[in-house]
Amino acid sequence: MPVHMELRRIIISEIHEQQVVMLKEVDGDRSFSIMIGIFEATSIDRRVKHLPSPRPLTHDLVASVVENMGGELRDVYISELRDHTYYAKLRIRLNGEMVEVDCRPSDAIALAVTASTPIYVAEDVLDEVCGE
Amino acid sequence: MPVHMELRRIIISEIHEQQVVMLKEVDGDRSFSIMIGIFEATSIDRRVKHLPSPRPLTHDLVASVVENMGGELRDVYISELRDHTYYAKLRIRLNGEMVEVDCRPSDAIALAVTASTPIYVAEDVLDEVCGE
Repeated sequence: MPVHMELRRIIISEIHEQQVVMLKEVDGDRSFSIMIGIFEATSIDRRVKHLPSPRPLTHDLVASVVENMGGELRDVYISELRDHTYYAKLRIRLNGEMVEVDCRPSDAIALAVTASTPIYVAEDVLDEVCGE
Repeated sequence: MPVHMELRRIIISEIHEQQVVMLKEVDGDRSFSIMIGIFEATSIDRRVKHLPSPRPLTHDLVASVVENMGGELRDVYISELRDHTYYAKLRIRLNGEMVEVDCRPSDAIALAVTASTPIYVAEDVLDEVCGE
């Protein structure tokens, strides 16, 4: 069962190359952190803070492509942890079917924040990072 | 008539915030430069150099969303220059129709390089920046 998570914290460091986002279970206490790049962290951060942009930024463009092609971003899903790398999917409803698009969790989270859609994480990923 | 252009040069400066891409007419000599952000410049640069990435980067994700939703990116089009800002569109063929998605020229050029599609610029934009 996918577990519903929320973005709890973004830690942006100008000294380190890797930034951190922390996800927390909505109906529970488990949480974990993912290391992401500075561009993605900044993109998530400006969305959370509702900083306006005169022109669509790259994650706005992803949301806009989905919408203009007649789809609806339903949720994003962090499905797997393999060799220290998290794998995620965008789940898009299109003509009554669900289209899944492979992506990095950082892009998935930026999209979820942009389009106000839920973030899910696979139960076994949570088990692995939080201990059973 | 849209004019077919090619990416001629990317100038990345670590000192300045704005980076430069130069587009040149394929069947002519006119060229002009667009100022873009460091993230977009780096993204275009790594595509031009065919630098591999283990996971899809954000512009790969845009291309992948288009493809997974059954569309085909046909070309990108820099359509307008207004108040010193260039406006662009992704032109996507979907179910026999053309879907246009508003974007920044930097994202458009990154997508064109990713998906190996042509870059067009409106004739009146070229007239304005290159002189008639």
